[in-house]
Amino acid sequence: MVDIKVLMEGLEKLDYQNMYNNDFLLTWEKTDDEIKAVFTVSDILREMREENISTRIFDSGLGISLFRDNSTRTRFSFASACNLLGLEVQDLDEGKSQVAHGETVRETANMISFMADVIGIRDDMYIGKGNAYMREVASAVQDGYKDGILEQRPTLVSLQCDIDHPTQCMADALHIINKFGGIENLKGKKIAMSWAYSPSYGKPLSVPQGVIGLLTRFGMDVVLAHPEGYEVMSEVEEIAMKNAIKSGGSFTKTNSMEEAFKDADIVYPKSWAPFVAMEKRTDLYSKGDQAGIDLLEKELLAQNANHSDWQCTEELMSTTKNGEALYLHCLPADISGVSCEVGEVEASVFDRYRTPLYKEASYKPYIIAAMIFLSKVKSPQKTLDTLINSKNGRFLG
Amino acid sequence: MVDIKVLMEGLEKLDYQNMYNNDFLLTWEKTDDEIKAVFTVSDILREMREENISTRIFDSGLGISLFRDNSTRTRFSFASACNLLGLEVQDLDEGKSQVAHGETVRETANMISFMADVIGIRDDMYIGKGNAYMREVASAVQDGYKDGILEQRPTLVSLQCDIDHPTQCMADALHIINKFGGIENLKGKKIAMSWAYSPSYGKPLSVPQGVIGLLTRFGMDVVLAHPEGYEVMSEVEEIAMKNAIKSGGSFTKTNSMEEAFKDADIVYPKSWAPFVAMEKRTDLYSKGDQAGIDLLEKELLAQNANHSDWQCTEELMSTTKNGEALYLHCLPADISGVSCEVGEVEASVFDRYRTPLYKEASYKPYIIAAMIFLSKVKSPQKTLDTLINSKNGRFLG
Amino acid sequence: MVDIKVLMEGLEKLDYQNMYNNDFLLTWEKTDDEIKAVFTVSDILREMREENISTRIFDSGLGISLFRDNSTRTRFSFASACNLLGLEVQDLDEGKSQVAHGETVRETANMISFMADVIGIRDDMYIGKGNAYMREVASAVQDGYKDGILEQRPTLVSLQCDIDHPTQCMADALHIINKFGGIENLKGKKIAMSWAYSPSYGKPLSVPQGVIGLLTRFGMDVVLAHPEGYEVMSEVEEIAMKNAIKSGGSFTKTNSMEEAFKDADIVYPKSWAPFVAMEKRTDLYSKGDQAGIDLLEKELLAQNANHSDWQCTEELMSTTKNGEALYLHCLPADISGVSCEVGEVEASVFDRYRTPLYKEASYKPYIIAAMIFLSKVKSPQKTLDTLINSKNGRFLG
Repeated sequence: MVDIKVLMEGLEKLDYQNMYNNDFLLTWEKTDDEIKAVFTVSDILREMREENISTRIFDSGLGISLFRDNSTRTRFSFASACNLLGLEVQDLDEGKSQVAHGETVRETANMISFMADVIGIRDDMYIGKGNAYMREVASAVQDGYKDGILEQRPTLVSLQCDIDHPTQCMADALHIINKFGGIENLKGKKIAMSWAYSPSYGKPLSVPQGVIGLLTRFGMDVVLAHPEGYEVMSEVEEIAMKNAIKSGGSFTKTNSMEEAFKDADIVYPKSWAPFVAMEKRTDLYSKGDQAGIDLLEKELLAQNANHSDWQCTEELMSTTKNGEALYLHCLPADISGVSCEVGEVEASVFDRYRTPLYKEASYKPYIIAAMIFLSKVKSPQKTLDTLINSKNGRFLG
Repeated sequence: MVDIKVLMEGLEKLDYQNMYNNDFLLTWEKTDDEIKAVFTVSDILREMREENISTRIFDSGLGISLFRDNSTRTRFSFASACNLLGLEVQDLDEGKSQVAHGETVRETANMISFMADVIGIRDDMYIGKGNAYMREVASAVQDGYKDGILEQRPTLVSLQCDIDHPTQCMADALHIINKFGGIENLKGKKIAMSWAYSPSYGKPLSVPQGVIGLLTRFGMDVVLAHPEGYEVMSEVEEIAMKNAIKSGGSFTKTNSMEEAFKDADIVYPKSWAPFVAMEKRTDLYSKGDQAGIDLLEKELLAQNANHSDWQCTEELMSTTKNGEALYLHCLPADISGVSCEVGEVEASVFDRYRTPLYKEASYKPYIIAAMIFLSKVKSPQKTLDTLINSKNGRFLG
Repeated sequence: MVDIKVLMEGLEKLDYQNMYNNDFLLTWEKTDDEIKAVFTVSDILREMREENISTRIFDSGLGISLFRDNSTRTRFSFASACNLLGLEVQDLDEGKSQVAHGETVRETANMISFMADVIGIRDDMYIGKGNAYMREVASAVQDGYKDGILEQRPTLVSLQCDIDHPTQCMADALHIINKFGGIENLKGKKIAMSWAYSPSYGKPLSVPQGVIGLLTRFGMDVVLAHPEGYEVMSEVEEIAMKNAIKSGGSFTKTNSMEEAFKDADIVYPKSWAPFVAMEKRTDLYSKGDQAGIDLLEKELLAQNANHSDWQCTEELMSTTKNGEALYLHCLPADISGVSCEVGEVEASVFDRYRTPLYKEASYKPYIIAAMIFLSKVKSPQKTLDTLINSKNGRFLG
């Protein structure tokens, strides 16, 4: 990692003023400079913490988390990011609260936000719902702020929606940037975002979509591979295509895992559910058709079983660039013979990449903290300077 | 809102020394000066936060919350208040803890309080229980402090009991004080605290009781309206009557919503359960008589259905003072055609007052913070001065 | 309590450098000086808090708690300790998280620890599991730190395992040290660690084992009493024996509560399950043999019922040294006629000792804080000096 001074100089060259008081929902709503600003501030915050420099910008304030699904990693990443900046996390547990009793989104959003500086939401289960819900919350607190109800406008950070998983994919990207020695070195590198077999059902599409929507911006050759029938949202494919053209890279699709892995610099083999099946499931849920859901699940598991050969094996890995492509995963992975009989990845491959995989995950808290920082702070460079010069330590010991 | 200097001058004239190291359970246990001190400190803390002045008086310390019922709003209000002062919230979840296994109140109260500066309790479900439980906890920690077990005496703040809902009603009151330009301007204003129809069952009495117990202190003409059979606790009515006489206002009762609304400056239409029914329910619960509870619920819903015309309609609103009475509600409201078929209020009325309603709710965290502040801090003015002069910001950005 | 200066002088004489960056799992893994250092730092932190001196060494950072069993007291003790030092507690609730979905310990341990300074674990249910699990977590984060995944190595603190309950027993010990006026005054004192009857089933062995493993270090005459069949782990008995020899005290066993209580200075009557039964239960659980578990429970309750005369009565208490032995318990106790018909202790005995019992419990947060402090801080005396001289208050009021 380069030193803080160099990172600060890099930050100075970027135009990211529009991030101030803005949300972070989809990476493709952000400019290249804004994306780079998040990477840079992440690295600065990490470096500051390592050098025992306090990064607290809040003396008090709440960071609210709302998870519509179980979560360990993202929950702790968000909590770590908030804590790093001085915010206390309050979890809006819908089981515990009156949200479950039919309150409108607008009202709840305002009621919990009187002292909230950030709201992190994970809502990835139903197609057409998650991102829409986040925008509803964002609009509600925007109105609340405008109407003088809220003294500050809480920033919305998507912790995963039905379309994108920005904090994950930005962490993935920062990992490869640091691995390859800079964002400029990603140009021309080939990455295989490939479907992989899992004995489980209905994994979200937001990771492959987020990856092709983000990594096509850096001039990479992004290959999306999956069996027929496992298509992702076409809107995101279009974004990937436009990104690739603009960045001088490429975005291609294939139904062959072998083709995708061939000479790849980076591979990201991961299971997901077909988009159309997820749309159908969402529809069945909204009708409360449990029999239909059960049937769909059966069908999908059977469909999956047809493709149990889509596994990231040592053999496949040997076909990548010099046989040493960097293996990525958002974790937890379905590891053959470990967490399941046959899964996304062979145990020996996973074992070999365990340390870089954990390192990949370690960027997420800093990515989230950077997103919050750039939205809340009016003059990020000035505030970072103040923190660095204040000589306040994170830890006295 | 007036400026901090003026508020501080107001505070200086008040006698509130007795609040030090004392609990806040029922508003009528507090003197007029003490009530005003809470309003004033609330406004000061809010103003300080808006001007980015740190209000942290605790470097460490816990604020413990105990909710016997689901709660979003009050939970977040308490968490916000604690955070604003520097306390970390720890929720005593009875599901998770050994409280459920039959520990005595006294023991648990001490075991959780070694580093607790405040305990907030919501216990509003059973008549005769909530307030009594809070006093039991208060007495336990008082003994613990006296006996040298606890190094500090945690302050008890009622977040709603079976009798009163002080943090809600104080927030309601501060809202109208600021709306009408000062507490002195409430004199002679007519407020209708009215029952309203809801298709649900068993809403707590603490809000109407809290409102008549508090607003009668300010020289207002307080009218309590409800259908026959929906009486509130007679002890609280007596308090309201005494308050009205002392303050030069009035407290009257009627079985006509129309009469109550006529020329009212403020209306507070809200459903509640009859006191005698709630007493009966408490009795059935303690006997474990589920069949009796089910029967009672049926009877009460049928009784409610007889009064579905008790709705806050546009027509009724047009009969208030200049047709523009301020509409209050503790939220969430049962809105006709929105959250239910027929409910407490017509959708267009609610919509028109949404912004002031949310603003009304926004006072609650500050009211709670002020209650804590005035109980914990020995010389509130001096400490506020120190904070204001310290130039520590809430937020560096 | 002696003053801070005297405590600091005591600390200076101790050799505890090896605690730095080390875990606290079993008291017998620590040297006498290290044990004394925990007591001394506990007393210093308590004294500092009483004198309103800030003990915050962390500006940000997480303290992670993982409870495999319900817990109020230990949960709040850990939260208090973390808060006292400036760490925010994040609870790893296995119900809420993906841990339940089969993630490996190694992965989860790293994923939650990116900004974790301490991890507190309570896992006392199954013989051979709890301590082993903690070591697995410790080894995982050690590797993560070594491999550059974690920027700091979170300290593991056992909040109770299947073998020892170090935070409880250290709190018990600090209580008697302060009662008897110093650790040197424990020499020659007789303590009866005695089984007592409870109508419930399967209480953990870690308390009696922790007590005999720790208190034998101070030259005391430690008597372990229980009915035949209620043996504790023989490994711990061997440790107690070795400790006793080294410290010039004694460790004896008896099947008579009367004999143990006779002339005792301190008594600790408490129910536990037989070690062999707990081993059997663990085995049945791992086989998923619910019928076997139910049968075992029945047998154990029947076995317990044979010993309902093992009760700490006034009559027994009168046989202790001057009839006024100090009564200890980790709480909650099964009190005859209060929490059960017949239990561990007569109500009048418990009542008489309630204040010292609560005081005993009050040491736990400080013990935990001291364990964290001594593991995280490189030069504890220097850091304590800095805190004391900084004049930062815990509370401004």
